[in-house]
Amino acid sequence: MPERKIVTLTTDFGLRDHYVASLKGTMLAINPALDIVDAVHDIAGMDVLEAAFILCGFYRSFPKGTVHLAVVDPGVGGARRPILVESKDYYFVGPDNGIFSYIYRDENPQRVIHLTASQHFAAAVSDTFHGRDIFGPVAAHLLDGLDPRWLGPAIDDFVRLPLPEPKAGAAAIAGQVVHVDRFGNLVTNIGAGLLAAAAGRKLRVRAGAAVIEGLAHGYDGAAPGAALALIGSVGTLEVSVNRGSAAAALKLARGAAVTIEIIT
Amino acid sequence: MPERKIVTLTTDFGLRDHYVASLKGTMLAINPALDIVDAVHDIAGMDVLEAAFILCGFYRSFPKGTVHLAVVDPGVGGARRPILVESKDYYFVGPDNGIFSYIYRDENPQRVIHLTASQHFAAAVSDTFHGRDIFGPVAAHLLDGLDPRWLGPAIDDFVRLPLPEPKAGAAAIAGQVVHVDRFGNLVTNIGAGLLAAAAGRKLRVRAGAAVIEGLAHGYDGAAPGAALALIGSVGTLEVSVNRGSAAAALKLARGAAVTIEIIT
Amino acid sequence: MPERKIVTLTTDFGLRDHYVASLKGTMLAINPALDIVDAVHDIAGMDVLEAAFILCGFYRSFPKGTVHLAVVDPGVGGARRPILVESKDYYFVGPDNGIFSYIYRDENPQRVIHLTASQHFAAAVSDTFHGRDIFGPVAAHLLDGLDPRWLGPAIDDFVRLPLPEPKAGAAAIAGQVVHVDRFGNLVTNIGAGLLAAAAGRKLRVRAGAAVIEGLAHGYDGAAPGAALALIGSVGTLEVSVNRGSAAAALKLARGAAVTIEIIT
Repeated sequence: MPERKIVTLTTDFGLRDHYVASLKGTMLAINPALDIVDAVHDIAGMDVLEAAFILCGFYRSFPKGTVHLAVVDPGVGGARRPILVESKDYYFVGPDNGIFSYIYRDENPQRVIHLTASQHFAAAVSDTFHGRDIFGPVAAHLLDGLDPRWLGPAIDDFVRLPLPEPKAGAAAIAGQVVHVDRFGNLVTNIGAGLLAAAAGRKLRVRAGAAVIEGLAHGYDGAAPGAALALIGSVGTLEVSVNRGSAAAALKLARGAAVTIEIIT
Repeated sequence: MPERKIVTLTTDFGLRDHYVASLKGTMLAINPALDIVDAVHDIAGMDVLEAAFILCGFYRSFPKGTVHLAVVDPGVGGARRPILVESKDYYFVGPDNGIFSYIYRDENPQRVIHLTASQHFAAAVSDTFHGRDIFGPVAAHLLDGLDPRWLGPAIDDFVRLPLPEPKAGAAAIAGQVVHVDRFGNLVTNIGAGLLAAAAGRKLRVRAGAAVIEGLAHGYDGAAPGAALALIGSVGTLEVSVNRGSAAAALKLARGAAVTIEIIT
Repeated sequence: MPERKIVTLTTDFGLRDHYVASLKGTMLAINPALDIVDAVHDIAGMDVLEAAFILCGFYRSFPKGTVHLAVVDPGVGGARRPILVESKDYYFVGPDNGIFSYIYRDENPQRVIHLTASQHFAAAVSDTFHGRDIFGPVAAHLLDGLDPRWLGPAIDDFVRLPLPEPKAGAAAIAGQVVHVDRFGNLVTNIGAGLLAAAAGRKLRVRAGAAVIEGLAHGYDGAAPGAALALIGSVGTLEVSVNRGSAAAALKLARGAAVTIEIIT
């Protein structure tokens, strides 16, 4: 089997407009060999940091050579640049608005290119839909073998959004909620690695009104309706409610403080 | 054309988190020849019986050899087992929480396997995302030709949820609403076969405040806004409102009683 | 690479019922070589004109030979006919309820066929789901090379919904909102071509309480929260609010009047 030419789509386009379809059609018209994978289309409208976090949660799952297209782009048509980010294993294509901030943190990109070679864009570029007119065509050409060097100059002043980092002390780790998922789980920025230093010790997690003793190993590690803490699927501390929504039960949202006390 | 390697996805993951994308990427990394088909991703969160019903509504449509992955899994990480169900024509992979209850009823499965062969799972299995770490990898390996016998021991104490069955008498059939679809149609558990016995006779359907005479053959079998009954797309009695929502108009939900009177 | 056999899906089925999956499975069982592309599944329930507009927004993006399946079909099972529309580059399959009205306007179709050849439908055709039982099978057979002439007789009395057309005078163009997108952008029926006649002149756009001077070239052509007008991605005038929702801010919906004054 020949290698597949996979491009993933991460957008806030939803599934009730023509945007996703126009993007797919444009890419297939340029490169009929593409395998287009719907990743996420219901990112909250214009929430760039949310998109950045979601992309970070899945991009590593894909085979090497995958192109990840990410278009949450409230500044489309304005001064923000279209870019291509190359890491060891992946390409990332989208606007230079910080949507790749976690990629810069985790992937040590080899090159970031300002996409200027308009001969590889759509024949006419609209003011409002660079997904269809720039990013999609560039992704389709990349997977057809186009050398990224033909797409524009390398830049090093790309936009990095400040990412909330946890503060680890000897007795406590202070983090925050960085994502609330569909089920109301509160995903924090406290990585499992930080907790490794506290291995064998007793932990207490505080999130809003909840005081949780120790870490569970599944959502049923607490009684139905009760709060618990565990290491979630992206490798960070997560506060959840068994068979319920932690966000609703604890009335917490993105940005809320979560603290781990290292007790004994 | 070589046979396609189709895996369908039925989840409650929604399209705003990384879950669907992580699952797809993981499977493609294991088996790049897969054809992944998005079936349903907006199952109401944690509603296992709903997922079971939806899966039952479509699995037969797919070509023989299709793997149906179904992950609505509130007990992930706990005691519930990951399983593989083999029927004559299909594989089903998911948690042993009753999500395959309709499959057990309709397919007379040849074997149910407790998935224990962790060498075929992800290298690290998280506590909260067995879709990515167990079910997806198993599906990908199955479609690469792995013999199911290598995946674990056969079991016969798998979980069967009680499925509401209609009660048929000479003068009436008593059923209930088992699904409310996006349009507000009230799908019942009264199969067309039960009505065959009443062929040629007058029928009266009662659902909440609605009293409906006879069966229609399309949603416009009643005036706009009026209730009607017909045999729906899964072969059971359905109560609908032409150009409207029966659930809203009749204020009925899953579990509501629906009765057919056989009159003359 | 052999030509791909692409079929796009435009429906109001949503992603929480079995409908989309049943449609896909049925098509793949008939023609395993298909490439099924999810276009739009969250069209507002039963809104035929909305579906017609969305389809118009993306169909041209796809490669020649694509089959566009569009199923928003409140009259399913009734008198409305299933049809196939052939244009120079595409096939369109769906109900004869006006869903192809924009196609008739823009594509000058070569033939419209009333689908009557039931041997190419599902073995049993339900009263409520012609997507699975008629349209899907026909699309799958078409992409397998079936000559459209075998599908039924040509007709010329197909349903055309009245499409709102703008009125252009020397001093003003009067149009209306024909679509509100996910972001609250107000997409009008005033095409860029109409404005070409006013090139070089000052324009003032009125939409509800908003009075907007001139056209912007991106959403940040106004201060955050302020209204602006630009030519949107389907080539018509669009009224937007930078980083906000014009529909919410201006309290306007589909059908609202939008006027362009040509000033000097």
